[in-house]
Amino acid sequence: MWQVDEAKLEAIAIGAGILGTGGGGNPYYGKLQVRRLLRQGAQITVIALDALPDDAVVVSVGGMGAPTVSIERIPRGDEWLVALRALEAHTGKRATHLIPGEIGGANALRPMVVSALAGLPLVDGDGMGRAFPELQMESFAIAGIPATPAALADIYHNVVVFPWLRDAKTLERYARAVTVQMGGAAGYAFPMLSGAQTRATAIPHTLSFAAAIGEAVLDARRMHADPIAAVCETTGGHLLFRGKIIDVQRRLVAGFARGWVELEGLDEYRGTHLRIDFQNEYLIARRDQDVVAVVPDLVCIVDALTAEPVTTEVLRYGLRVAVLGIPAPRALRTPEALAVVGPQAFGYPDVVYQPLPGVYGAEHAERLR
Amino acid sequence: MWQVDEAKLEAIAIGAGILGTGGGGNPYYGKLQVRRLLRQGAQITVIALDALPDDAVVVSVGGMGAPTVSIERIPRGDEWLVALRALEAHTGKRATHLIPGEIGGANALRPMVVSALAGLPLVDGDGMGRAFPELQMESFAIAGIPATPAALADIYHNVVVFPWLRDAKTLERYARAVTVQMGGAAGYAFPMLSGAQTRATAIPHTLSFAAAIGEAVLDARRMHADPIAAVCETTGGHLLFRGKIIDVQRRLVAGFARGWVELEGLDEYRGTHLRIDFQNEYLIARRDQDVVAVVPDLVCIVDALTAEPVTTEVLRYGLRVAVLGIPAPRALRTPEALAVVGPQAFGYPDVVYQPLPGVYGAEHAERLR
Repeated sequence: MWQVDEAKLEAIAIGAGILGTGGGGNPYYGKLQVRRLLRQGAQITVIALDALPDDAVVVSVGGMGAPTVSIERIPRGDEWLVALRALEAHTGKRATHLIPGEIGGANALRPMVVSALAGLPLVDGDGMGRAFPELQMESFAIAGIPATPAALADIYHNVVVFPWLRDAKTLERYARAVTVQMGGAAGYAFPMLSGAQTRATAIPHTLSFAAAIGEAVLDARRMHADPIAAVCETTGGHLLFRGKIIDVQRRLVAGFARGWVELEGLDEYRGTHLRIDFQNEYLIARRDQDVVAVVPDLVCIVDALTAEPVTTEVLRYGLRVAVLGIPAPRALRTPEALAVVGPQAFGYPDVVYQPLPGVYGAEHAERLR
Repeated sequence: MWQVDEAKLEAIAIGAGILGTGGGGNPYYGKLQVRRLLRQGAQITVIALDALPDDAVVVSVGGMGAPTVSIERIPRGDEWLVALRALEAHTGKRATHLIPGEIGGANALRPMVVSALAGLPLVDGDGMGRAFPELQMESFAIAGIPATPAALADIYHNVVVFPWLRDAKTLERYARAVTVQMGGAAGYAFPMLSGAQTRATAIPHTLSFAAAIGEAVLDARRMHADPIAAVCETTGGHLLFRGKIIDVQRRLVAGFARGWVELEGLDEYRGTHLRIDFQNEYLIARRDQDVVAVVPDLVCIVDALTAEPVTTEVLRYGLRVAVLGIPAPRALRTPEALAVVGPQAFGYPDVVYQPLPGVYGAEHAERLR
């Protein structure tokens, strides 16, 4: 068990930004909100998955929508709590613990806000080990746990409940359509899990992992060491490219930020190009003609000097960046998972998923406290 | 109190088709389903608004979506009941009576299906006195009754509940987005009213009115009299035009059938043209340069010989039709109502609502049994 303090928060925001693979929402606003709550005396306790009692009532909370929207229209700050309360009212059960639906991006921080406001502990894990653009991509759904009941809320406290939908993909479609009507951003609460279900299906240790990544980056900056090497070491990741952004195509389509970014190589990559396609998150990196990293492995863009994560909504001409590839969590590399989060699920029929070598850093538990 | 039998059903389907002003869904499938239920022994009882006890729990049920869809994909037949059950489960209250949200088109018949399946009496009235394309256009909402809680269900029994939304227009936007995801058609249940609220806000006598219109048409056909004159007499309506359809523009936009139809005059209208704009329902009729009827007055297209209603989804080149204008119910002609259902609300800033002379037929209670 550990507490989120300001130092951990700073580190988690960096780590979650990197694990967000460009999406999950920019963590900056979330960090400011959690910091304010901490300064007001809020306690945010994180417990290990193993410590969850079987009969715990664990709810995943976070935000749904396009990152492009969340940077233009800041959240009210309690829409995730309102969604949680709606789910509790509908089910007649009170949550005992919270878990992030995705550790990537702002969605690592929103459960901390709810934790602080509702006085509920957080579980050290999440449903993705990274960020993904669609709801059915959560490990809970991949493992067959029903996606409903589920709840959405917006900045006006408009509330929508989904008592029963036939699968998580249907929830994705319906909730996405409502989110678009909510102005492109909504708070969500789903699924509601038992402690036993959570232990069986969550990606473990990922809050600690995000903190460890951020601490490695901050330590390296402080020591004038290479923060990018520190990220690779902590995550099990690989440097794929260094370069300058020379083109960005980004459109808001059906509630998603879709597009691609093109980089021109620098240093040892001079004379080559890298292109990355994205749908909220970076999906596929191609160096010249070769595919070098494919979803569900994590394709991350960070600032070339500071390793500060670069999310899709802040991509712009001229930025000098490094591109990293981090092996996906084991649970996302099974055939069942690849059917939902592999390249075919994102509309790339011809791209073969070639796993990056190595192991997702959170699976080296000894590296995390 | 009266019972719906097969003869009444036949008449109501015609009357509802005429009051549907081109929308509300084609009543044909609904009629077939109610007839089958009647032949299986179902009882459908209609009680007067005045007979409703104050503490009755009255729920408006019906279908949402574009008529163009409902003619291509027939309903499962119980989605309206599933929506009702979801609303009951959410509120913890059981319905004691049902009321049509709109008397126009298929939505006059769907509450009869639910009445037969659930054994609940129907109230003789509705929320529009006609059909309108959007939810906030119900008299209940115009009178200030909250639109939520509300429920939607589809043919897979997927269920969505709206516990609280800030107004009926927000419900319209959110429910419409979900309906599109449901394949363009959904069953709805909302609002849940007390008996006192229903008496204060419903348009009265409209089930009897639909039956009377249909009976007048059927009588005239049997007697070789003019069924169009019979409709005008029963409804307080006016013949606006006779002609042949020479052009139709119809597109499915954002869940609505939008477009216009152009007629070339016949008989006394030879040499003139009439154009009618629609959004699910016929909204504005222009004869050459002159506006001759404007929503909320009812613009109806019927077959030139039989007075069979012609809905927007069956408009086609060559049909010979008569166009009727029927005065709107009194409750729709107030300034408050015109702000929601007048031409400005439909995107016609420059069209002035000039009420047709006369009185909506259901307001002559003595004409109805």
